[in-house]
Amino acid sequence: MGETLAQLGENELLHRLARFAPAGQLDDDTAQVHTNEGELLINTDVMVEGIHFSEDTTTPKDVGWRCVTANLSDLAASGVDQILGITVGLVVPPETPWDWVEKVYLGIEAALKQFGGTLLGGDCSRGDQRLLAITALGTLGPVRLHRSQAQPGDSLVVSGPHGLSRLGLALLRSDPLIEAALLPDKLKQKAIEAHQHPQPCLKALHALQTCKPAELPWRAGGTDSSDGLLAAVQGLCRSSGCRAILDPTGLPKDPDWPLGQHWDSWCLNGGEDFELILSLPPKWATAWLQVLPSSQIIGVMEQGPPRVEWAHGKGEVSNFSSFKHFQ
Amino acid sequence: MGETLAQLGENELLHRLARFAPAGQLDDDTAQVHTNEGELLINTDVMVEGIHFSEDTTTPKDVGWRCVTANLSDLAASGVDQILGITVGLVVPPETPWDWVEKVYLGIEAALKQFGGTLLGGDCSRGDQRLLAITALGTLGPVRLHRSQAQPGDSLVVSGPHGLSRLGLALLRSDPLIEAALLPDKLKQKAIEAHQHPQPCLKALHALQTCKPAELPWRAGGTDSSDGLLAAVQGLCRSSGCRAILDPTGLPKDPDWPLGQHWDSWCLNGGEDFELILSLPPKWATAWLQVLPSSQIIGVMEQGPPRVEWAHGKGEVSNFSSFKHFQ
Repeated sequence: MGETLAQLGENELLHRLARFAPAGQLDDDTAQVHTNEGELLINTDVMVEGIHFSEDTTTPKDVGWRCVTANLSDLAASGVDQILGITVGLVVPPETPWDWVEKVYLGIEAALKQFGGTLLGGDCSRGDQRLLAITALGTLGPVRLHRSQAQPGDSLVVSGPHGLSRLGLALLRSDPLIEAALLPDKLKQKAIEAHQHPQPCLKALHALQTCKPAELPWRAGGTDSSDGLLAAVQGLCRSSGCRAILDPTGLPKDPDWPLGQHWDSWCLNGGEDFELILSLPPKWATAWLQVLPSSQIIGVMEQGPPRVEWAHGKGEVSNFSSFKHFQ
Repeated sequence: MGETLAQLGENELLHRLARFAPAGQLDDDTAQVHTNEGELLINTDVMVEGIHFSEDTTTPKDVGWRCVTANLSDLAASGVDQILGITVGLVVPPETPWDWVEKVYLGIEAALKQFGGTLLGGDCSRGDQRLLAITALGTLGPVRLHRSQAQPGDSLVVSGPHGLSRLGLALLRSDPLIEAALLPDKLKQKAIEAHQHPQPCLKALHALQTCKPAELPWRAGGTDSSDGLLAAVQGLCRSSGCRAILDPTGLPKDPDWPLGQHWDSWCLNGGEDFELILSLPPKWATAWLQVLPSSQIIGVMEQGPPRVEWAHGKGEVSNFSSFKHFQ
């Protein structure tokens, strides 16, 4: 039978699939489509019950909202201008109540109403497990963000704090360790909101598009942090052939975020943060910090092997708990 | 818990989902996207193991081929010009061999090579069941085919024979009734080929685009017969508010197709035929028959309640065995 996907892991799987697409096409989550009339961005995300959402922690309306958000976040992390819309491939067991489906679509509708675009169609089928495959379509704005466009000398900047969604999940699951931590109510509310009702990083992108110093070209490395902050920075390193140096005292945390290794790990590896992670010339980074108060510098890009290291020679940043798709 | 999808059935489900999309957007399988630079067609199809394909009857390479074909057939039935490409949402259990995935993508690659477009990207996730959600993107040609554009007085025409794919499935499953029927080898081979290696109706569309009598406007009703011939004609009737009259002696069958009610039923309701079903002004229909030898007239569209009837007042055409997505 040969190797299984569990043995390969996701990175090797994507690497092997890359040969079926034009060179570089699968390097980012979003693909660029050249038409005679202009450039389009297209992105597909699959969300499976029991893996990406569950009835315990996510209402059906939030399932719809999060599916759209995850897709639009990828379009934002590629430099979208106008969001045209989405298609929905819906798979559900026949015993699924209509009520569940309706609420999912109400969540989809609410997200499209807020962020733009329309429901363009789709397909439905029965299957053993509830899942949605969403494809989002948009036009390209002035800067095409790519993982491969980071350069040594860039500042590494993020649009907001990380780890909130992971904390929200723990709270929704009534994790006893977290309940014992006596967190401020404000942080708890923010974390649950981040998990159930995430926002795509479209505002952060818009700020980036409007603040570029005139003397700089439209070149920036970028991705979103849907698989976690560290995975996002590792993606930039791998595709750009650069080393990232992170400042251990400058992790992007909420002001109320507790201290400790466990909490740092959730900030780095929590996942589903949907923030923009950018590699920018320092002048552009500074301009972005001024127009987007939630953003911050977390490190620099340097020449060197493609990996993420702590500043002051403190070794490689560990991703022991990052999200694995097939393991 | 309210109604389940099994209780609703697919037509009612689609009807209820229609309110989440712009008016008429879900009326056809393919959606039209207006951009500032031109019109795009986009279509999503989901194919689930155990429902749309199975290891017994379809090689992994043919799974990939058929997924692309089904999507391109929908684009063709909407009037595509250039096929831009597809995205693939792949869901597989972790124990799936890489070999299976690779062969699926080889089938996808072969279909794109033959019909145009590239692999634009996608997403992978683990799940309980193998499935593919494919979204195809293309530009719109001179005529936008809609189910809703049929008119009384039109000829009802199809691009080729129907039922072959259903026969191929029966042969691949070694159905004893079929094995006893002593069919010509030529028919058997054609049927297995139609099931495992279907062709999207792009040639038939191209013929249609080039043969329009100059005095007629670019108006035609159309769909494909992926859910079966009768379902396709019923869709035209429902969306256009017309009655279709079928000639019982003029069903579109292969020259070697046996006589009998069972065989007529497979022609009408077999499904997965991927032919173009058009409602055309008689002059345009005649021109199409001349440039596309496999095509034929199967009836006419009339004013009347939206249903499909046999000619000479012989009653409504039954679809007792048509494909149900949720039942």
